[in-house]
Amino acid sequence: MDNSKQLIIGLFGFGTVGKGLYDVLHSTPTLSTTISRICIRHPDKPRSIAPEFFTTDASALLNDEQINVIVELIDDADAAFEIVKTALQKGKAVVSANKKMIAEHFEELLELQQQYQAPFLYEAACCASMPIVRNLEEYYDNDLLKSFRGIINGSTNFILTRMFEEQVEFQQALRLAQQLGFAESDPKLDIGGFDAANKLCILLAHAFGTITKPKQFIFNGIESVSLQDALVAKEKKYSIKLVANATKLENGKLAAFVLPQFVTEQDDLFHVHNEFNAVITESAFADKHFFKGKGAGAFPTASAVLSDISALRYNYRYEYRKIRNLPATTLSNDFYLKVFLSVDEIGKINKDEFEWIEEWHNEFSHSWLIGVIHAGKLSESNWWKQPGISLILCPDPIVESVDYRKISLQSLKLAGVAVSA
Amino acid sequence: MDNSKQLIIGLFGFGTVGKGLYDVLHSTPTLSTTISRICIRHPDKPRSIAPEFFTTDASALLNDEQINVIVELIDDADAAFEIVKTALQKGKAVVSANKKMIAEHFEELLELQQQYQAPFLYEAACCASMPIVRNLEEYYDNDLLKSFRGIINGSTNFILTRMFEEQVEFQQALRLAQQLGFAESDPKLDIGGFDAANKLCILLAHAFGTITKPKQFIFNGIESVSLQDALVAKEKKYSIKLVANATKLENGKLAAFVLPQFVTEQDDLFHVHNEFNAVITESAFADKHFFKGKGAGAFPTASAVLSDISALRYNYRYEYRKIRNLPATTLSNDFYLKVFLSVDEIGKINKDEFEWIEEWHNEFSHSWLIGVIHAGKLSESNWWKQPGISLILCPDPIVESVDYRKISLQSLKLAGVAVSA
Repeated sequence: MDNSKQLIIGLFGFGTVGKGLYDVLHSTPTLSTTISRICIRHPDKPRSIAPEFFTTDASALLNDEQINVIVELIDDADAAFEIVKTALQKGKAVVSANKKMIAEHFEELLELQQQYQAPFLYEAACCASMPIVRNLEEYYDNDLLKSFRGIINGSTNFILTRMFEEQVEFQQALRLAQQLGFAESDPKLDIGGFDAANKLCILLAHAFGTITKPKQFIFNGIESVSLQDALVAKEKKYSIKLVANATKLENGKLAAFVLPQFVTEQDDLFHVHNEFNAVITESAFADKHFFKGKGAGAFPTASAVLSDISALRYNYRYEYRKIRNLPATTLSNDFYLKVFLSVDEIGKINKDEFEWIEEWHNEFSHSWLIGVIHAGKLSESNWWKQPGISLILCPDPIVESVDYRKISLQSLKLAGVAVSA
Repeated sequence: MDNSKQLIIGLFGFGTVGKGLYDVLHSTPTLSTTISRICIRHPDKPRSIAPEFFTTDASALLNDEQINVIVELIDDADAAFEIVKTALQKGKAVVSANKKMIAEHFEELLELQQQYQAPFLYEAACCASMPIVRNLEEYYDNDLLKSFRGIINGSTNFILTRMFEEQVEFQQALRLAQQLGFAESDPKLDIGGFDAANKLCILLAHAFGTITKPKQFIFNGIESVSLQDALVAKEKKYSIKLVANATKLENGKLAAFVLPQFVTEQDDLFHVHNEFNAVITESAFADKHFFKGKGAGAFPTASAVLSDISALRYNYRYEYRKIRNLPATTLSNDFYLKVFLSVDEIGKINKDEFEWIEEWHNEFSHSWLIGVIHAGKLSESNWWKQPGISLILCPDPIVESVDYRKISLQSLKLAGVAVSA
């Protein structure tokens, strides 16, 4: 595509984002980009534009040689992959916002782009309008990126914000989010942490060149976070956020996880409310960068799709340099996490799982502890995901190594034995 | 330059940033980029690396055909321009952090890049390590960018933070900033607002395609901000920040200025402390994006220089699409500003300059008002920059038009006359 070539778009899906994109394109004539045809599943729904724009036949778009860009904005990840695959095979440029599909098929999509030399852009798949994929891909490749962490799911952040501000239980905050359109009618993908885990996969590839799947790292959602947990957090002047984290360990490998976390007021993530998303990068010389923007909603998502479409006009594509030019950075669960663990029945805590325990509170229907546990133990078990158990990371949760001499001295002191350090 | 070609760097200047860059390059062997020669002014200073790396002869670098990248990190803007000009004429890529030189010679530098097809990158010139120039250039070109505003000078933000946190006068905070290396021994460029104004010129070109000079818009520094002003701000739960602002007016033109401003706790800029910089973009569909990072210091600046060097390996260059492909967005002073004005002597206020006045406080050695004034009146006069006068913008300072009917009704009400709206 050269600078002067017009983009002719075939659009799959006309839900809130597809409709948002259509509206944005039509209120911005300077973009000189047109949607030629729209493929939908239900032809009988009433729609705001003329029926001749619509078809239910995917091949009508995929086989149209006039169409040089396919924009894929449907829910079904399997159907989406078939569309994207066929479009790339036909040499069409593709823009997608489908994080599940991209995370599940990352390697195949990489190969398809390489084999058919067709660009595939998906800025809208992570943090909606925020240019985080492109910044990780382009700006941090030369610097020594140490870590990134962030709030990358808008629905769960909305729910947690409501729980804190209105002191309501999770279920009530969820219903409010659904009423306001910030959570799906089937919210499992969001509140179970799956959506954030899929996005973490995409960010890991562009930040560190690491190709992975959610099952390879620890993740959880926010279903088990209770109002009582929120009240403990408030007392400690913390907030609770669902945080995705990727941090280089001293051994050169990567710690990666998505878990609820206590964040302090000094943490930039503390001030990220409602449907907003944010990412903090930390690099050896640039220090910390903080990005914040709307992480959900039709227009913010459509605007990221639009940025990708515009980038195609200038032949932009991801080069995946960190994947192609450097040795792969691999994940490791060989580190420790400092966690807050609360339970409705004290019998649900297996103290032996912990390296050490720093705090311990026992009340009638809510007991909790703060302790250090090996990440490998969390990754290999599911006891901490059972109903009635809530595991929330402490601030600065990663503990690289455990000094047993120090711990045993501390335990002796706690036990009242006089020791000389 | 292709992917495999090694970059051979000729470096001008070995101050804190130049030295920082040297250290960063030498602790990051994967970059495979070498500094071949360093041009300095004072050969007799003791330095940490071997003397054969240094020369005082600029042509030894500029005429060396092996050197394909010139990195210019000297203070003197005039000498810097001569170096950059010669380097571009010889087809060498150039990286610079010299905002004054770039703002003063923007058009000539644009022509040189065009004529000699040599890339010129300067991410380090704005907000040090933050990738703001590149994001404005690349990501916001398709969207309807409405405005950007931010804290783009680290020294003044450090001074204002100290004034607020320690309740000290400007001069005392300035001395502290100088002791800690966050302000130059001659701080005029920073505290007079010139540095922020130069950076605003660069950001305007990449955000809106507007080529301008500081003298074409209203700007001031923070020298006149007094501890008493800070105390008024604190009482109103505001902070004071030096804010650069570029906002599209309803008439399609741009309001642009750099002035101290009251910011509310809800404003993301409120939480930007010490030497940090931050920029908020606002676009029609993406809504607000917030970027924050270290805006000063040897390593943050060097890391931005390094990112530019790395980008050169992949043939990155600014395309200046908004300048080349779109009609120019011009500046206008045809708008109103809501301001706080404090004086040490009440006679210094000329009330007739204001459209209307909302608050008025008169004390022994500190009188102040809050009122609305036409930007054209500020741009055409200097009375408000005199010693003893402090002009600080209110939150949301831009007033596009004034409804005189409403004002006169309000005045009548204030005067106790019964009116029907």
